Amino acid sequence: KQFQTSAHRNIYTPPENFALVCGSIYRSSFPRIENFEFMLKLKLKSVLCLIPEEYPPENVEFLKQNNIKCFQVGLSGNKEPFVKIKPELVNEALKIITNPEHHPILVHCNRGKHRTGCIIGCIRKLQKWSLSMIFDEYRRFAYPKERPLDQQFIEMFDDSHIQQYAQDQNWLPLEW
Amino acid sequence: KQFQTSAHRNIYTPPENFALVCGSIYRSSFPRIENFEFMLKLKLKSVLCLIPEEYPPENVEFLKQNNIKCFQVGLSGNKEPFVKIKPELVNEALKIITNPEHHPILVHCNRGKHRTGCIIGCIRKLQKWSLSMIFDEYRRFAYPKERPLDQQFIEMFDDSHIQQYAQDQNWLPLEW
Repeated sequence: KQFQTSAHRNIYTPPENFALVCGSIYRSSFPRIENFEFMLKLKLKSVLCLIPEEYPPENVEFLKQNNIKCFQVGLSGNKEPFVKIKPELVNEALKIITNPEHHPILVHCNRGKHRTGCIIGCIRKLQKWSLSMIFDEYRRFAYPKERPLDQQFIEMFDDSHIQQYAQDQNWLPLEW
Repeated sequence: KQFQTSAHRNIYTPPENFALVCGSIYRSSFPRIENFEFMLKLKLKSVLCLIPEEYPPENVEFLKQNNIKCFQVGLSGNKEPFVKIKPELVNEALKIITNPEHHPILVHCNRGKHRTGCIIGCIRKLQKWSLSMIFDEYRRFAYPKERPLDQQFIEMFDDSHIQQYAQDQNWLPLEW
């Protein structure tokens, strides 16, 4: 297989900014061919891609071959002065992520910093984390490009809809 | 209870630099009274403290009350020119962490940057991560105090003993 670039040395290389969020929810930057062997280790059931552009054919093929469902919610990052992440799209993404039928799930954008950081920040709100520690985590991954607007987005995001929805489905509390 | 400082607002505050490493292995900075309610959420079976100093009485009391086992392996950080983490102590720490009977386990030092970073780097070696991505993770938590010596320690650490030991106990591969 073409993506066995490192596994022959018995070494696995996660995508940059890879981390386990909670339960079996993972986050990362855009996975590349070099990361495919590593991704198999996670036994993913699905991937949620947060960029609006079309998924590259090698990634589509990899997911198909391994029976991994591919979700896409195209977000535009929070950039001055007028581009803002749409809360209804965030709700859509959160409904995909909190659904245990989709776990293990990997959430990614391009760098794993901003769009992913906002979405994970909203997940932490569902877990009732204090804002100071949500931002501590956000900044760790976004460095050296932390955006105050992203942190503002997380703070201002009204999670009452997704809170109610996920509770009704018995998806909350999230597994730790 | 004296540590319900934030839970009355239904908000939980993890220690700084808190993260899920893999399976039910967690890392963080030194947990303080403000973090106790959050820690209960993790349903910890044990805590591994990596500093040599005595554990504060409020932490001892908290762990005792909640039936959480307390391990301590006192490491001295890697500091120029002559202080070095002792590999035999690292092996001792890794034997505690990889033992599934101790899970969920929280590993911490003071800041959750250097000693914890070295130990988690060694855990990633057991998971066969590439060094570049082990360092990517190390730097994320150690920022702005990344130590080349810590990264060198992780690279040079001979994991054959713990590898063999943990395999013999059927503790590997670690849960993802």
